[in-house]
Amino acid sequence: MKKIAISLAMVTTASLMASNLVDQAKNAGLKAIPNSQSELLKLIDDPRNPITDAKVELGKKLYFDPRLSKSGIISCNTCHNLSEGGDDGVPAAIGHKWAANPHHLNSPTVYNAVFFQAQFWDGREKDLEAQAQGPIQAHPEMAATKGHVEKTVTSMPKYVSDFKKAYGDDVKISFEQITDTIALFERILVTPSPYDDYLNGSEDAMTPAQKEGLKTFIDKGCATCHSGITLGGEMNAFNVTGTYKFQDVGNFKGDKNGLIKVPTLRNITETAPYFHNGQFWSLKDAIKEMGRIQLGTTISDKEAASIEEFFGALEGRKPEMSIPMLPASTATTPKPNLN
Amino acid sequence: MKKIAISLAMVTTASLMASNLVDQAKNAGLKAIPNSQSELLKLIDDPRNPITDAKVELGKKLYFDPRLSKSGIISCNTCHNLSEGGDDGVPAAIGHKWAANPHHLNSPTVYNAVFFQAQFWDGREKDLEAQAQGPIQAHPEMAATKGHVEKTVTSMPKYVSDFKKAYGDDVKISFEQITDTIALFERILVTPSPYDDYLNGSEDAMTPAQKEGLKTFIDKGCATCHSGITLGGEMNAFNVTGTYKFQDVGNFKGDKNGLIKVPTLRNITETAPYFHNGQFWSLKDAIKEMGRIQLGTTISDKEAASIEEFFGALEGRKPEMSIPMLPASTATTPKPNLN
Repeated sequence: MKKIAISLAMVTTASLMASNLVDQAKNAGLKAIPNSQSELLKLIDDPRNPITDAKVELGKKLYFDPRLSKSGIISCNTCHNLSEGGDDGVPAAIGHKWAANPHHLNSPTVYNAVFFQAQFWDGREKDLEAQAQGPIQAHPEMAATKGHVEKTVTSMPKYVSDFKKAYGDDVKISFEQITDTIALFERILVTPSPYDDYLNGSEDAMTPAQKEGLKTFIDKGCATCHSGITLGGEMNAFNVTGTYKFQDVGNFKGDKNGLIKVPTLRNITETAPYFHNGQFWSLKDAIKEMGRIQLGTTISDKEAASIEEFFGALEGRKPEMSIPMLPASTATTPKPNLN
Repeated sequence: MKKIAISLAMVTTASLMASNLVDQAKNAGLKAIPNSQSELLKLIDDPRNPITDAKVELGKKLYFDPRLSKSGIISCNTCHNLSEGGDDGVPAAIGHKWAANPHHLNSPTVYNAVFFQAQFWDGREKDLEAQAQGPIQAHPEMAATKGHVEKTVTSMPKYVSDFKKAYGDDVKISFEQITDTIALFERILVTPSPYDDYLNGSEDAMTPAQKEGLKTFIDKGCATCHSGITLGGEMNAFNVTGTYKFQDVGNFKGDKNGLIKVPTLRNITETAPYFHNGQFWSLKDAIKEMGRIQLGTTISDKEAASIEEFFGALEGRKPEMSIPMLPASTATTPKPNLN
């Protein structure tokens, strides 16, 4: 009986410690992706264009279709590659004619972007629907006109029937309807992780080292900006000190206050290089740099390693999806223009 | 009774006509993809490296991994896009630094390439294993060195464990082992179609118009070169007259006899533009041009339309596959080089 009593006491202490950390995380503004599908749906769905299977399947095709670009060889998935943590793994996005982003901006991950309160590094668009219109038309990205996109999609009977199936026979296949459908597909790109399982009550979902890292993360003040469901880009959409000094690799000025959006830390281990200009390849170095610049503090090697350990718990489970099969071009599909 | 007798007679006549066309197709050298999985496996498997699920899954990851290229943004799937009929939809392949193929060569489809007796437009390599080594290293394509590819793959523990799972703990992850695994993945990219179902005995798999088109296809002599399982590139690997005149869009000389491989017609409706130099966008025009140049005959608009109708029956069922999730880069993964 004595042995059992001791064991019980130990379990209780461990549980208390654990729940203390969960409370501490929640008090610091950290939030989990809900594990109830209906609760999740409340967060990601949009009454203006409710999610349905037909729309998701169509949106996925459009997301993967390079013919939406001027050249015919760049799709949304080129820079926001679902196989690579939702981005492209290069410092600055490479677009039409191999042009690097003129502001040397790093492609942000599309995973969990639905939770952002603002889109783009300067937060100039409020939602995925508005965001999706940008890169398709931007000259150093997909370089297409609205007309090109509309003509391309409507030239293929299969796309037209997919749109009718998704929205009804009266659907007008406008540029906005097309980009709204891409955005709708992006809404489902949510990646629950061991961190979420832990915050949602599964004590053992995170390893002891990851829990220690979470504690370090909170204690050092990282959650001041990296909070909410995204651990960045949600509650505090922009860095609060504004003292971040850019390396001389572009002329990006941030938003009207010279501030830059706090990126999500979800899947951060899969999305090097880091920062809006992709200047850091090492996650440990990036963590230490943030301590120095944003928090005015020193994060030791040991602390950075511990925080990095925690970031491992943010590697999410990606939605399992089939490779889409795109409709064949027809005689009226606009030809690729590589110049 | 009389009515029934007439019906039976009609069925018999229809069956005879149909089987006559099947016989005619087989006599012309046309072959179906077998519908028995074991018979198919005999055709696509290679005793040097037998197909297993673990190798296919690994090969798929490598096929989709842009980090195998010098730039980090071009994968096998960039030019041989599984979503787009297995090619890229542009006249000449676009590679590293947006360079067009210097010989202005069109990317051939990867689907059913396992059935080719020779690979590349000049047939210089005999199998997919040898082919896979080419574009990864070619400067206007993926522009990588063997060392880059080996270092990239071995820098990621997940890839190393995948290779061990596929080939055993003693596996040497050489460039050749990597490209062999990509080739193995490509071996399963087979697309059975209504045409195969028809040749395999399903009378109604092809529409009457498609059957009529098949008859026209045979009668006009197209099957002289476009025969075998691939309808090209198998039994008669190279065009037989050698009179094909290139447009002045490159300096490709063909093989040692100045001949060019006969491409497959499978999924041809999905792989415009046509010919080795991508000079034709219209399938009808391409059909007529082939009659003129290769057969020395005129194919009328009506005949070309009928043959094109038949080509619809060659649209195959693509293997259903999940989007691969690639391992995260590590500190030792070679960095992208966009120059």
